[in-house]
Amino acid sequence: MAYTIRDVAAAAGVSTATVSRALRGLPHVNPQTRELVRRVASDMDYVVSPSASRLASGRTGTIAVIAPFIARWFFSTVLSGVDSVLHTHDIDLLVFEVGDPAIAYRIPPERRLRGRVDGLLVVALPSEESAVANLLDLGLPVSLIGATAAGVPSVSIDDVAAGQTATQHLINVGHQRIAIITGQPKPTGFTPATDRERGYATALRKAGLTQDPQLRSFGYFTVAGGEQAMTGLLAHAQPPTAVFAASDEMAFGAIRALRRHGLRPGQDVAVVGVDGHDLSDLLDLTTVTQPVRDLGRMAAEALLAQLQLPMAERSRVAQATVVPTTLVVRSSTVPVLLAES
Amino acid sequence: MAYTIRDVAAAAGVSTATVSRALRGLPHVNPQTRELVRRVASDMDYVVSPSASRLASGRTGTIAVIAPFIARWFFSTVLSGVDSVLHTHDIDLLVFEVGDPAIAYRIPPERRLRGRVDGLLVVALPSEESAVANLLDLGLPVSLIGATAAGVPSVSIDDVAAGQTATQHLINVGHQRIAIITGQPKPTGFTPATDRERGYATALRKAGLTQDPQLRSFGYFTVAGGEQAMTGLLAHAQPPTAVFAASDEMAFGAIRALRRHGLRPGQDVAVVGVDGHDLSDLLDLTTVTQPVRDLGRMAAEALLAQLQLPMAERSRVAQATVVPTTLVVRSSTVPVLLAES
Repeated sequence: MAYTIRDVAAAAGVSTATVSRALRGLPHVNPQTRELVRRVASDMDYVVSPSASRLASGRTGTIAVIAPFIARWFFSTVLSGVDSVLHTHDIDLLVFEVGDPAIAYRIPPERRLRGRVDGLLVVALPSEESAVANLLDLGLPVSLIGATAAGVPSVSIDDVAAGQTATQHLINVGHQRIAIITGQPKPTGFTPATDRERGYATALRKAGLTQDPQLRSFGYFTVAGGEQAMTGLLAHAQPPTAVFAASDEMAFGAIRALRRHGLRPGQDVAVVGVDGHDLSDLLDLTTVTQPVRDLGRMAAEALLAQLQLPMAERSRVAQATVVPTTLVVRSSTVPVLLAES
Repeated sequence: MAYTIRDVAAAAGVSTATVSRALRGLPHVNPQTRELVRRVASDMDYVVSPSASRLASGRTGTIAVIAPFIARWFFSTVLSGVDSVLHTHDIDLLVFEVGDPAIAYRIPPERRLRGRVDGLLVVALPSEESAVANLLDLGLPVSLIGATAAGVPSVSIDDVAAGQTATQHLINVGHQRIAIITGQPKPTGFTPATDRERGYATALRKAGLTQDPQLRSFGYFTVAGGEQAMTGLLAHAQPPTAVFAASDEMAFGAIRALRRHGLRPGQDVAVVGVDGHDLSDLLDLTTVTQPVRDLGRMAAEALLAQLQLPMAERSRVAQATVVPTTLVVRSSTVPVLLAES
């Protein structure tokens, strides 16, 4: 004879509702109780039917992550942070790699989301763009990473401050002719890029330095793009003595370009990035670090909190969380006075 | 009045079956026809109901990728290759990060797969382990990456040859005291690790060199692990003059350890890796490169091919594809005679 949910509840000394919540990974069950229920259910070979319970509760047990890329460091690290939270709640992860928002990106149509996922995690996509705005209007709980929108919880860094800190550091160690490697020529809806550039401009202005449009170059947020951008900057009649790259991967590319020219990062041309990439240490890159895995974790937790609320209450508790960054100084930015010539 | 599938078929001049196949992203529709049908359907505001058609055809339009990690370079790059294929077929990606197979990994239970996905892509998990074997027995089409199993299509490199090539290269440039940084002390079901080590042993034996068990160390396939392993090797009474690391990320860690000791990779201790990591070039690492993104692409294509076949025929056409690797020599392995002392 197969045991029923009532048998499990009786054996564990809890209500059937608690058994259901515990086995379906829903919140509001304390961890010891959840563990007890799971053990008892396992002993009794009782399995909650996921499809039945999902139909009844309207829950799919699945969250969609919508991100421009999967393979780039920032995104795969965010994804791993997200999954670390979902995993403990037995929630599955549907991943949509939608492509570069500055070029052409393919937001999944409503029919691929509705009824298939309980909520959306949107990473680094411009919330004001119509395709993304439509997503936010689906009526599904949403949580944003690296972007903000009214009434939607979000986790991001202060990108203006990150750009300003990085650039101010270059000024502090003695540079005046400071280039920027940003994403693409035309401003896109991708706010981290424009905000980091705004921080760069602010730091220059506050230091009384003029911004030379010739020192603005484009690395498309890739290593290869950063290398090309740096190569272009070095070909100017008056090359920069320092470069602010709006991401570590572009900074890595800049370092590669410097080496190809026989120039020493830090000694000959200073380079600073933003990210705190795993390998920035190994490449001796000064960078403004952000806790990327934590961004993923926090956004996943905010989304799970939204899932517990009726739609009307969600925006009331939607918080825009700004996570602090840290400047980590390494030998890619040696004070000009100390650099060997 | 809403248009029906017949209206779309008539307007596009094709059969209703073709409209259905084209809009559901199924194969056997030529690209021009698919594009035409999509345009006509879009003009007529006709949307195929995915849930209805999926129930009818038994297709969920979703593939599960089951991998130990998401954030590590090899895995995120494979994932991106997989997605590049699935995307063009409008197939969604359910991602299960299951954890380290050598420690504790959590294969998704059958109930989280059956009826939710059309097929499985299993990355770098030991097919002979019972949890993985159970997955292969679910009756769903499966395709493997970095592992093989009878009757299942797979894409991998020749890991024995990769280890042998890397080690032979160290011998060729003049080394005799060659350490290995592999995964973990106990042999696990993870064949790439054991196979690469077997290649290392073979190369030493063929060169008449004895294998010193003191020179076997463990980097757990992470940068930090590689750094610790190299640090341990350097603390021996007779440290190695060269190291074969079974992955580029462990080799990066080894390079970091060398630098912390004031030693120059290539000049003082030679290092070679396996992978062809994006940043191996920047870190001047000699490595045996594998086409990681292509592994993902090819496995996804093999899986799509399996999806077209009745179950009984699948194993008949299941191919074990072995993709060639290439030794790329950089300055982390300078010939001993040329190294400055």
